Amino acid sequence: MDAIEKNLLKEVAELDSLPVGAYNIRANGQLDGRHTTANIDIVTKTDKPGIDIYIKPGTKNESVHIPVIISKAGLKDLVYNDFHIGEGADVTIIAGCGIHNCGGDSQHDGIHTFYLAKNARLRYVEKHYGEGDETSKRVMNPTTIVHLEEGAQMEMETTQIAGIDDTIRKTSGDLAAGASLVVREKIMTTGEQNAVTDFVVDMNGEGSSANIISRSVAKDHSRQEFISRINGNCACAGHSECDAIIMDDACVLASPQLTANSVDASLIHEAAIGKIAGEQLIKLMTLGLTEQQAEEQIVNGFLK
Amino acid sequence: MDAIEKNLLKEVAELDSLPVGAYNIRANGQLDGRHTTANIDIVTKTDKPGIDIYIKPGTKNESVHIPVIISKAGLKDLVYNDFHIGEGADVTIIAGCGIHNCGGDSQHDGIHTFYLAKNARLRYVEKHYGEGDETSKRVMNPTTIVHLEEGAQMEMETTQIAGIDDTIRKTSGDLAAGASLVVREKIMTTGEQNAVTDFVVDMNGEGSSANIISRSVAKDHSRQEFISRINGNCACAGHSECDAIIMDDACVLASPQLTANSVDASLIHEAAIGKIAGEQLIKLMTLGLTEQQAEEQIVNGFLK
Repeated sequence: MDAIEKNLLKEVAELDSLPVGAYNIRANGQLDGRHTTANIDIVTKTDKPGIDIYIKPGTKNESVHIPVIISKAGLKDLVYNDFHIGEGADVTIIAGCGIHNCGGDSQHDGIHTFYLAKNARLRYVEKHYGEGDETSKRVMNPTTIVHLEEGAQMEMETTQIAGIDDTIRKTSGDLAAGASLVVREKIMTTGEQNAVTDFVVDMNGEGSSANIISRSVAKDHSRQEFISRINGNCACAGHSECDAIIMDDACVLASPQLTANSVDASLIHEAAIGKIAGEQLIKLMTLGLTEQQAEEQIVNGFLK
Repeated sequence: MDAIEKNLLKEVAELDSLPVGAYNIRANGQLDGRHTTANIDIVTKTDKPGIDIYIKPGTKNESVHIPVIISKAGLKDLVYNDFHIGEGADVTIIAGCGIHNCGGDSQHDGIHTFYLAKNARLRYVEKHYGEGDETSKRVMNPTTIVHLEEGAQMEMETTQIAGIDDTIRKTSGDLAAGASLVVREKIMTTGEQNAVTDFVVDMNGEGSSANIISRSVAKDHSRQEFISRINGNCACAGHSECDAIIMDDACVLASPQLTANSVDASLIHEAAIGKIAGEQLIKLMTLGLTEQQAEEQIVNGFLK
């Protein structure tokens, strides 16, 4: 692994060296390293690119790192990863993809399907990062499909702060009784970048809940679209929230949809799009910051 | 005018007798009465069904009533009404449609286009009401198109509480600098009724603002869809709010969309769908109301 690849790994997985616990590192479309534990098995798919990750019932306090790094220009990588989380397990999975390319467009499409068995708990962290020359595009289209059985709980944190020119991020989930899904998304787009996020959640089981929180900053000429569809099909609670800071000549569209198919569904949505409040800027500028520094401070705080 | 027609007139226009000021009464697709004033002229269109209403610049504190009543079964009425409100005028227009039909479906489609000149102010009230036998359908598809010139202000209040089986309510507006549009919509659906409301507002002028407030109650097997699209194309403020009470086996869908095409656009949306809070019901029931009476009280308060 060279210096560029090591840096990508640090950006997407906060790793300086090989991770503790189970891991599977994919570099330029190939397996680059794998470690399994007594409770976590990782198996290469035979019918298509990707892996199956099996986590035994009752596994606690273990983690799986599955970073993908692409340092070749012109590479188009498609991968199917399936996660089978056993009953009562409580684990963390850290995914992420970093692209460094010069002299050609590169693309990574990751299709991740999660099967959480009864009362399983999962924290899933996903970070997307790109770097390289200005003429090469970096494209990432993550698809996340979540199946939550009774009482299963999943928290998903996704971050895309820099370097991705084009992304369509699709997340869908179906929730059985008592299941809970929390999604926290952070996106920043700059230059001519384009980002679309599309959430669909079906609350099918009594007492299930979904909470989708999106925070985004759109700078320069970038364009963002936030779509969410929350369907309450039973006694359930759904909430979605989309806050966007718009700067320069950017454009932001928020299109959340709530559907109550049951009298016992309680659904709430909030969205706000606006620029940084002038008074906030002035306050920081009276403390000695330039306008640009003040904006950066506010944006960093907003996306923290 | 018979007793049925008089009752319809009362329901949609709160009129016991002929109104004061200008009016145009349309009954069963025909002109039934018209009155103009020195400042307000009403002219029958020659190219299609409908009227042009001309309000002179500077006209203040005058009103126009334009009720439509249909007491024939099987009638399908389509009308184009255009409203030309002169510069600096400040008037009230009360529209509304009532259908009473037995033994056949009746339908009224009213296409209303408003041209508000500079600094004109308009309060526009529209009420839809239906009654008749259970086997005859009552359909109303109101389309409202609003053009607001610089500094023009329009407040629109629409109410559809009972008796309309099927409705697609389309409202669109474009706003020049400093113009303001406020829409308050109240809808209640029962039985197998279906109601769709669709708002599109383009804020094109600096300092324009739009505020769309929808309150609805869906009972029995009825179905409601709320769609709004607010486009901020300049320094402007947009707000939309959709609160729905869902009861019985009803279904409610809210799909608001915000698009900020300018860094100076400030857009906010809120939506909440849920049933009547149990504690509210219990409180009223401890005061001696039956559950049904308590529900009615709450629904009436919500739609007031």
